[in-house]
Amino acid sequence: MEAKTAKDSRTIMTDMVLPGETNPINNLFGGELLARMDRAAGISARRHSRRIVVTASVNHVAFNRAIPLGSVVTVDAKVSRAFKSSMEIYIDVWIEDRESGVKSKANEAIYTFVAVDETGRPVRVPELIPETKIEIERYEGALRRKQLSLVLAGKMKPDDATELKALFE
Amino acid sequence: MEAKTAKDSRTIMTDMVLPGETNPINNLFGGELLARMDRAAGISARRHSRRIVVTASVNHVAFNRAIPLGSVVTVDAKVSRAFKSSMEIYIDVWIEDRESGVKSKANEAIYTFVAVDETGRPVRVPELIPETKIEIERYEGALRRKQLSLVLAGKMKPDDATELKALFE
Amino acid sequence: MEAKTAKDSRTIMTDMVLPGETNPINNLFGGELLARMDRAAGISARRHSRRIVVTASVNHVAFNRAIPLGSVVTVDAKVSRAFKSSMEIYIDVWIEDRESGVKSKANEAIYTFVAVDETGRPVRVPELIPETKIEIERYEGALRRKQLSLVLAGKMKPDDATELKALFE
Amino acid sequence: MEAKTAKDSRTIMTDMVLPGETNPINNLFGGELLARMDRAAGISARRHSRRIVVTASVNHVAFNRAIPLGSVVTVDAKVSRAFKSSMEIYIDVWIEDRESGVKSKANEAIYTFVAVDETGRPVRVPELIPETKIEIERYEGALRRKQLSLVLAGKMKPDDATELKALFE
Amino acid sequence: MEAKTAKDSRTIMTDMVLPGETNPINNLFGGELLARMDRAAGISARRHSRRIVVTASVNHVAFNRAIPLGSVVTVDAKVSRAFKSSMEIYIDVWIEDRESGVKSKANEAIYTFVAVDETGRPVRVPELIPETKIEIERYEGALRRKQLSLVLAGKMKPDDATELKALFE
Amino acid sequence: MEAKTAKDSRTIMTDMVLPGETNPINNLFGGELLARMDRAAGISARRHSRRIVVTASVNHVAFNRAIPLGSVVTVDAKVSRAFKSSMEIYIDVWIEDRESGVKSKANEAIYTFVAVDETGRPVRVPELIPETKIEIERYEGALRRKQLSLVLAGKMKPDDATELKALFE
Repeated sequence: MEAKTAKDSRTIMTDMVLPGETNPINNLFGGELLARMDRAAGISARRHSRRIVVTASVNHVAFNRAIPLGSVVTVDAKVSRAFKSSMEIYIDVWIEDRESGVKSKANEAIYTFVAVDETGRPVRVPELIPETKIEIERYEGALRRKQLSLVLAGKMKPDDATELKALFE
Repeated sequence: MEAKTAKDSRTIMTDMVLPGETNPINNLFGGELLARMDRAAGISARRHSRRIVVTASVNHVAFNRAIPLGSVVTVDAKVSRAFKSSMEIYIDVWIEDRESGVKSKANEAIYTFVAVDETGRPVRVPELIPETKIEIERYEGALRRKQLSLVLAGKMKPDDATELKALFE
Repeated sequence: MEAKTAKDSRTIMTDMVLPGETNPINNLFGGELLARMDRAAGISARRHSRRIVVTASVNHVAFNRAIPLGSVVTVDAKVSRAFKSSMEIYIDVWIEDRESGVKSKANEAIYTFVAVDETGRPVRVPELIPETKIEIERYEGALRRKQLSLVLAGKMKPDDATELKALFE
Repeated sequence: MEAKTAKDSRTIMTDMVLPGETNPINNLFGGELLARMDRAAGISARRHSRRIVVTASVNHVAFNRAIPLGSVVTVDAKVSRAFKSSMEIYIDVWIEDRESGVKSKANEAIYTFVAVDETGRPVRVPELIPETKIEIERYEGALRRKQLSLVLAGKMKPDDATELKALFE
Repeated sequence: MEAKTAKDSRTIMTDMVLPGETNPINNLFGGELLARMDRAAGISARRHSRRIVVTASVNHVAFNRAIPLGSVVTVDAKVSRAFKSSMEIYIDVWIEDRESGVKSKANEAIYTFVAVDETGRPVRVPELIPETKIEIERYEGALRRKQLSLVLAGKMKPDDATELKALFE
Repeated sequence: MEAKTAKDSRTIMTDMVLPGETNPINNLFGGELLARMDRAAGISARRHSRRIVVTASVNHVAFNRAIPLGSVVTVDAKVSRAFKSSMEIYIDVWIEDRESGVKSKANEAIYTFVAVDETGRPVRVPELIPETKIEIERYEGALRRKQLSLVLAGKMKPDDATELKALFE
């Protein structure tokens, strides 16, 4: 199975914010953004693995910027690291001001997907080769995040999470 | 502003899984579940605060159980702790087998919402009084999770996250 | 087949009213409420019977209270009586004022579902045991309503509808 | 205000049954049909009154025929009688077999709408003039149904419901 | 296979314009109208052929009239000519002013559908017999349009498009 | 007003095909594709003009390739030429095979949008500068297409459509 680059899995999903997707102060519901990111990340994972993929986890997501009704939102997803059958997908969300055309970062999120066969059993996926500076940073962070995820799920002892512990030393 | 109990904000959202919400192996999309949990958590936060509320963050969510097409899914949300203007909402997701009627836990998630006024500025919310054993556990965990969230966002130094550090000692 | 209580089938569906579901004076469409009640009632009937269920009829429904955009609506359904293969489901609809938190009754409706096998043929369902005062009242009313339904469908002579006739004597 | 004929308000809504609208045995959900009928009836009432209209009630509806996935469903609505500010709308639902092209009656329903002004207050509507044999029958039945509705709502004594009582004598 | 008249395939789809379907100046999105016309045209083609049908092409469509939020829109589709396995469907779109009740033409479009069997292979369809003056005009225009379509697709030389060339002589 | 390049307006919308969007042989409805292309083209026109934009017309679209359920579809839109207040947008649609990862062209379409102010009146837009070979070809074709559109709408005499006539000489 041949390794792939991050840009091979890049998935861009640009769309508007419609009235049925906004809260009472006319901003996009957090849940709706989570759903769009899941769809984009899923397509990205599928492009990397050429397999059926299912969401395994979502890292902590903060919603720092409101996304107003009528905005154009771009969800930009790329696989940041591949493990045995799981893939971490890093997502950047951009919004764009209609009058100035200025794009600004609205959000960032990290999803993990697992590749499975038709019966739902995990299958191996190709390795990921990071190329750009930011891809390399995200690739390296991925191991730390995987450990945090295992610790929180009670599947790894904090002591064994070497990459993670380094954060607190 | 009078303190409230967790059960005052309890929100139950039961619904089916329809074909347009499933992936190629006929299980509910992770993103669709994230969106349903966001709606239930938002109603719960609103019941606690009686204010407009907006999603501030979602903690790490793991999808350990697939939820098949046609399942009945119950999203059960309660405020687990209130801070100045933010509220942590703890969500349990149950699915139910049609033939045996057995309910089983499919997921757990923790969302944070902020109460705002009509212009989007944060406003104070009532305190939360936990009552049951599990409510008390979740209330206590909430502070630790808030610290982790601040550390990850670069708004708190790991050294100051006393509750969190204890995990690794 | 063991009899069940009404609370075994209780189904609560809480959700908001979004812009795409409202009429020109910004209240929930009657048809949208009918659809939500059908989904909740269907889940309730399925919980009672553990079978596939299909809508058989809806009793007269009056819309006395408008439900404004942004409201939180709770549809609360319970089986009120079981016949051979059909079940009457009684639904209470509540809305809730954001500022005061006051819940008020917005509607009431009665749906009948039939349990069927995979080929669509009716199958027997368990009996229902009413427990509370209101459950007993609704259980007793169910027979009268069944007769009215049969008379209106031309499947029972008005003279044989003994429970129903009593209303006019 | 000039009286209008029933055909002035005739509203035809033809559409397919899609996968997201069907139950586990692949038939249209009862609730989805109720919602389509509400939309068609509302347009019919609006055509008669040229006003904003809101659903006031739905008469007993029986679902005698399953409507399979992929069917073409035609909802055909006409005002059957106008009262002061309310209108009864009679709806016939047809489905059509793809291979033979045969149309058959799948359902019938009766909705009542009220015409309102921008503040939601009832306003007068034109009278309805029935023309065909079936329109005249439905026009006459409308008074009887209005009485039943008032009796069931506890707003009319059964003794005063002269048209209705005749049914049981 | 017996020939059919245009009115045999007539399909009327009346519905409202809801908030989730409008652009920032509150008019129906062009794309949403294109989708509604496709559904109505598809039902019309299916009524003519009694077969599964798939969209083959859409002629040039101009959007000369904005369709405001809350409008009642009627899409009226009829087969205008049948070829071997393809059918041209002519669609008229009407909107209706609530206060005056005046209907006005909002659009016109021409779709081509192909009848196929379960494996997607084209199958023969009945001939179409135009009856009214406008049906005859559209029937005659259909050949010219088919030639234009073939020329634009590079499947016919402009010189052979005799009906079409006449336009420019 | 500064001229812009085509790539400034490039809009990529990648998404899956879900069950509610497919016809009985499990391919994406033509109308659903038309709606997605309209949304992408509208965002592209908005990026070029930084104004509210409305669909003015859609050129002839042929559906040569079926797009199966579960496919990943990429709609890729760029402004191909700007006139006074209108913009032609050229759209390429790609689908992608899950197993081989091979992308293939599924469709091509040309939409025209008009930039308007808040009251719906047309406003001027920047000029477009084509850069690549294909952008230049499409830029040149745009004038011919505009003439065809005016001729078909009866707003230009065939004799004056010099670019278009050349096709038939």
